[in-house]
Amino acid sequence: MLVREVSEFELIRLLAEALGSPAQSEGPFRRRLSIGDDAAAWDGPEGTTVMTSDALVEGVHFDLDNTSWRDLGWKSMAVNQSDVAAMGCEPLYSQVTLGLRGDLPVEGIVDMYRGMAEAFGRYGGRIVGGDIVRSPVFFVAVAMVGAPSTEQGDRLMTRAAARPGDVVAVTGSLGCSAAGLRMLRGRLAFDSETTRHLRDAHGRPVPRVAAGDALSRAGVAAAIDVSDGLVADLGKLSEASHVGARIYSERVPADGYLRSCFPDDCLELALSGGEDYELVFAAPLWVVEAAVPGMDVPVSVIGDIVSGPPEVTVVDADGRTVPVERGGWEHFG
Amino acid sequence: MLVREVSEFELIRLLAEALGSPAQSEGPFRRRLSIGDDAAAWDGPEGTTVMTSDALVEGVHFDLDNTSWRDLGWKSMAVNQSDVAAMGCEPLYSQVTLGLRGDLPVEGIVDMYRGMAEAFGRYGGRIVGGDIVRSPVFFVAVAMVGAPSTEQGDRLMTRAAARPGDVVAVTGSLGCSAAGLRMLRGRLAFDSETTRHLRDAHGRPVPRVAAGDALSRAGVAAAIDVSDGLVADLGKLSEASHVGARIYSERVPADGYLRSCFPDDCLELALSGGEDYELVFAAPLWVVEAAVPGMDVPVSVIGDIVSGPPEVTVVDADGRTVPVERGGWEHFG
Repeated sequence: MLVREVSEFELIRLLAEALGSPAQSEGPFRRRLSIGDDAAAWDGPEGTTVMTSDALVEGVHFDLDNTSWRDLGWKSMAVNQSDVAAMGCEPLYSQVTLGLRGDLPVEGIVDMYRGMAEAFGRYGGRIVGGDIVRSPVFFVAVAMVGAPSTEQGDRLMTRAAARPGDVVAVTGSLGCSAAGLRMLRGRLAFDSETTRHLRDAHGRPVPRVAAGDALSRAGVAAAIDVSDGLVADLGKLSEASHVGARIYSERVPADGYLRSCFPDDCLELALSGGEDYELVFAAPLWVVEAAVPGMDVPVSVIGDIVSGPPEVTVVDADGRTVPVERGGWEHFG
Repeated sequence: MLVREVSEFELIRLLAEALGSPAQSEGPFRRRLSIGDDAAAWDGPEGTTVMTSDALVEGVHFDLDNTSWRDLGWKSMAVNQSDVAAMGCEPLYSQVTLGLRGDLPVEGIVDMYRGMAEAFGRYGGRIVGGDIVRSPVFFVAVAMVGAPSTEQGDRLMTRAAARPGDVVAVTGSLGCSAAGLRMLRGRLAFDSETTRHLRDAHGRPVPRVAAGDALSRAGVAAAIDVSDGLVADLGKLSEASHVGARIYSERVPADGYLRSCFPDDCLELALSGGEDYELVFAAPLWVVEAAVPGMDVPVSVIGDIVSGPPEVTVVDADGRTVPVERGGWEHFG
């Protein structure tokens, strides 16, 4: 059986099984979350730590033709900051592993690091070390640890905490990252403001660190970030929580740029396009309503958590089911 | 300027410069060590944490032709456990980023994870998460956090703590990993016991976790693990400590297998061959002598730390300087 013949989900299940349950003590540390959330988490003698990792591979996640070095640096950090944000935590420290081809320009790599520093300056954390290795394919692998803000104590948001009766809500708007990728790959021409908006949505995603902290502080317990696509990621939350989810298509936030550039596909892009790095979360409506006033990003209530099998259903204004491609991002398909 | 035209040291310097010094607060966390040691380290509200990362890339660090999947898993963990050991710490938690080609066998990847679990079972720590991405080149990037054992409090071994008058010592014996690689690549034939010894030295290195803890406990403050080669790694320790080092060639530990298989090259392999993952350390002689009785591996005193420029000199029994290739492992040469 080859890697491309199994789903990522199945592969992760097989690997977790191969690891078994090591018997050795964890000393004063207690593991809280492991494989299967946005980040792993453990409690130390005092306080909770989360850890996540995410890699970008040339030709798979980016092309140097249509990505600036600085944006690449920004994005390599932002995708990890987003995982930390989805736990309701703040980024602290990172290690960067660079796999470099010998014919890459040093100036480019340096500019990439400037982009990383920009993302840290804005959303927290810093690079404390790493490893540089020779590789025939250029890749950037980042591992990041974070912690709940001091006021939050040991409170975390997880994928497993959604309950029937919760509403489903999402920060910001969806679909522009996938639209930006489509624009770059297809060399589509829009006006300069639109071009910049879509390019930045894809190349310089905003990790919702402050929003994640505010949501957790308000009592939201279930969240995930939108990396693979709204329906795909909400599907993971549903599975982890053993609940279903229903989304009302007309409530899904798609901004004016997306609607005017891709009028026929904007819903599909918003539902299945990946890499928006918004937070989708579930909580009782009153908890969401209490959280919103203090937040630095708009929030849209887009659906409900329901009892039943862990499926995500999308319905339109007339109550008809909208067919959706589950995955915005097929890893090995 | 291209990546292959600069040294790894210079590239790291440029990247650290690009990061600057972010002004944001680190909250209750205080950074102790950053880019430039075996691991980064910081102090949290209670206790010290270290973090390291190391990647293995197919065709650069291993070939599937002469590496078993299980050994690959073992080694990917052991090289990180070794970095943690060189700080005098114990491995705690890891994130694994896999870059996978679609045509790799799932059974192989699963077996690799069994090898990881073996290394964890023996030397501590566990995998708590990771990321699986598609990649045209297979790679395994591991990030690991650790902490001093409870009795050790916040004590760490670093590269910067060697002082003139210290002796230089090393655990175990050196050169067999490079000899094993030479055997595998050259398809050299030895008796089965020798073949296994050299193959395991290269494929299943032993991270010196217990030894690192014992050394730190005894008061050793300066250490590094031998990944790039004794002279190269001792050179890094010398630079970080602003001291020189003198090694006596006849004291460098090379075992009987190495001496009998490579009688002409055994000293060169022991001095410059990389990937032994032994610990080389510096401390006053009485500290080393006090540490040795409690250790699970032999220790050889091989030289002295001296005042002067950060150079490593190797001298033979007659006091003549032995010329040495500085790097056992040229990353981009």
